[in-house]
Amino acid sequence: MKRFNPFYIQEGSLLFPIFQRFPIIFYLIKWVILSLIIGVLAGFASAIFLWSLHWASDTRAAHLWLVLLLPIGGLGVGLLYNYFGKEVEGGNNLIIDQIHKPSKIIRFRMAPMVLFGTVVTHLFGGSAGREGTAIQMGASIADQFTRLFKLTAQDRKMILIAGMAAGFGSVFGTPLAGAIFGLEVFLLGRISHEAILPAFLAAAIADFFCRLISHEYLYIHHSVYHVAGDPDHVIPVMHIVYASLAGICFGLAGRLFAKTTHLWGDFLKRKISYAPFRPLVGGAIVMILFGVLYFGVGPDVGTRYMGLGVPTIKAAFSQHLAPYDWAGKLLFTALTLGAAYKGGEVTPLFFIGAALGNSLSGIIPLPFDLLAGMGFVAVFAGAANTPIACAVMGLELFGINYGVYIAIACVVSYLFSGHAGIYNSQIVGTSKH
Amino acid sequence: MKRFNPFYIQEGSLLFPIFQRFPIIFYLIKWVILSLIIGVLAGFASAIFLWSLHWASDTRAAHLWLVLLLPIGGLGVGLLYNYFGKEVEGGNNLIIDQIHKPSKIIRFRMAPMVLFGTVVTHLFGGSAGREGTAIQMGASIADQFTRLFKLTAQDRKMILIAGMAAGFGSVFGTPLAGAIFGLEVFLLGRISHEAILPAFLAAAIADFFCRLISHEYLYIHHSVYHVAGDPDHVIPVMHIVYASLAGICFGLAGRLFAKTTHLWGDFLKRKISYAPFRPLVGGAIVMILFGVLYFGVGPDVGTRYMGLGVPTIKAAFSQHLAPYDWAGKLLFTALTLGAAYKGGEVTPLFFIGAALGNSLSGIIPLPFDLLAGMGFVAVFAGAANTPIACAVMGLELFGINYGVYIAIACVVSYLFSGHAGIYNSQIVGTSKH
Repeated sequence: MKRFNPFYIQEGSLLFPIFQRFPIIFYLIKWVILSLIIGVLAGFASAIFLWSLHWASDTRAAHLWLVLLLPIGGLGVGLLYNYFGKEVEGGNNLIIDQIHKPSKIIRFRMAPMVLFGTVVTHLFGGSAGREGTAIQMGASIADQFTRLFKLTAQDRKMILIAGMAAGFGSVFGTPLAGAIFGLEVFLLGRISHEAILPAFLAAAIADFFCRLISHEYLYIHHSVYHVAGDPDHVIPVMHIVYASLAGICFGLAGRLFAKTTHLWGDFLKRKISYAPFRPLVGGAIVMILFGVLYFGVGPDVGTRYMGLGVPTIKAAFSQHLAPYDWAGKLLFTALTLGAAYKGGEVTPLFFIGAALGNSLSGIIPLPFDLLAGMGFVAVFAGAANTPIACAVMGLELFGINYGVYIAIACVVSYLFSGHAGIYNSQIVGTSKH
Repeated sequence: MKRFNPFYIQEGSLLFPIFQRFPIIFYLIKWVILSLIIGVLAGFASAIFLWSLHWASDTRAAHLWLVLLLPIGGLGVGLLYNYFGKEVEGGNNLIIDQIHKPSKIIRFRMAPMVLFGTVVTHLFGGSAGREGTAIQMGASIADQFTRLFKLTAQDRKMILIAGMAAGFGSVFGTPLAGAIFGLEVFLLGRISHEAILPAFLAAAIADFFCRLISHEYLYIHHSVYHVAGDPDHVIPVMHIVYASLAGICFGLAGRLFAKTTHLWGDFLKRKISYAPFRPLVGGAIVMILFGVLYFGVGPDVGTRYMGLGVPTIKAAFSQHLAPYDWAGKLLFTALTLGAAYKGGEVTPLFFIGAALGNSLSGIIPLPFDLLAGMGFVAVFAGAANTPIACAVMGLELFGINYGVYIAIACVVSYLFSGHAGIYNSQIVGTSKH
């Protein structure tokens, strides 16, 4: 039985002459409908995800003994992926691969599995983020419509980008950055406008629905960060030089993060052939390290590098942090994610950047909250190779006043982070220098 | 005699081992220096230009009889270009051509000639803008350093993009949009990050210097537009649909503008073989049309479509305009620019968009100032095929509150404006749909 397909007008049909004369109208209708569906579903998924993260973080904070179960939790998720998730294990890289070389529709199970796996990571105190999860949920949900609407390979590429944009834009509450991220991430050094309409529409709609559900029904809100700064602190043209210097540090930190995570992951892969044992071992090391810090240095230092780390990210904008905080988070996150725990890289990168920026205020004569804001987006810009998306995210999160300095930090960080970022499947479109 | 060149480290020199190990450091130093030079000079040129425009607009407003001299002024500038400016007549298209196929360094005279020509256009009441002038000044100044520093073809491409970004960013006071415009304009449907560092640095520095000189010494400021809007006017998700509908209108207006200007220009070229006579004829028609409106309809309508039109653009954000204002400006500008008067397209496109958006508030249930803000950047996004630069310009000019709706209007406008924009030399990198 041939399904009815509203998206391809057959020759001879009543609408065909209009379609032939004004194909753009059908293009618009098609992508508004698809973006609406993807946006609503991805926004809904992000809201559920944000709520689950809240629950997991609060529960762990209340019952710190849960950290003892981190290795077991990791083993459980490892076993789950080993027996039911081999096809979706690739995560973000699988999606990027499918954008470059469309071959097989991503299975829907990617969404619930990565959601469950990420909640486990956070419940038991692994150090991870959320953008990977949101992107995987968005893209795998979106890809189900490939079959339903019998989309072409080109359309499928666009729907995957829209799904990524919707997931990213809604989980961070930054729809414009989400849209540009979707367009910028798969090819290093290039933005292609092919999927520009679905990316912007799906991100905007997902952000709207995620906010609606989060605020009205789940009573949770996106974190708000505030850069007060002081425009008269130094003359602005020197800001540009300082922003460049800070950008070098942020780029090198992004590079160090990507390298450490990859090296640790490769090491575990070489040494442990049975995949589910890798998170068991990695989780045990994170747990022991946590114990050493908790009992050796102090409870607050021990808990600081677990989970998302939002309280410390917020603190980076209002008080001076310890100069080793960025390195601590980098280590904990690399150990967690390298051992194949589920979750994203981006919130830890926000932490690493904000903490590093905060500490740089001892050397670079800029207000520490401005440096924290620069680092927040710039380390991510370097590690993910998405400078324009991150510059726009800076505008969305910190306002326009410091937009130029934050953008320059992102651009310089991007140049100094090398060509191998956190996403292995990213293809070099335009070399950096 | 071989000049000293600080930008290329010779084998055997003291710095060579460091250069070999860390080429990125030299890359950074080189482009910081070049961007600083370009930024300072382009910013200075933009300040002088803004001041000259102020003078020309005020003088014309005080002595309206100057409009009678428009054809003669056009003839004068036409003669000047015919005998001394054949090589630089290409303007923006020449620069884009040189980015694609570097062949011959752009002569410095492009800068003073286009400055003079544009001031003549505005002094005598032609309808034109300023981005073309700023871009041509920025790029031709920048290109002089190609010879001085013996830059490679690749470096020259980057320096031209930096010059465009610096000119654009400083003349409108929107450095981030300027930087992205420079990266986005030469290839339709694509942003390449090759020149990302010089584009952002030069635009930021040029904007800083232009503001410094304009505010401190010339006592002029960039125009400020305010979108108050009303976030509770309609439910936000419908905003997205309304923004898309408005975007269609803006895209079609952008297309109409580009088409009309090209058709009129081609018609004059076919009918009048001696180039300097074209502005003579075109100017006479503009002058007569002005007279008809001034004496037939009313003095305020007559003067409304001359020059930059900033007062009407501002009014579009605070009061309802006549529904034909956008078309009037479109006609006057197409007649002026098609007849080879110097100046840019962008400020008239701001006018056309803001006035059209303002009028659309009768049909589309959004606040008229929000629609004016959308149109302001979205008609330009469609006509120049630079949707991401225009979305960022929306953030820089109107703040973050309505950023998503403005961005969607820009994206839809871009899709509906066709593949032939205002810049003939733009090459299609990625087809729109």
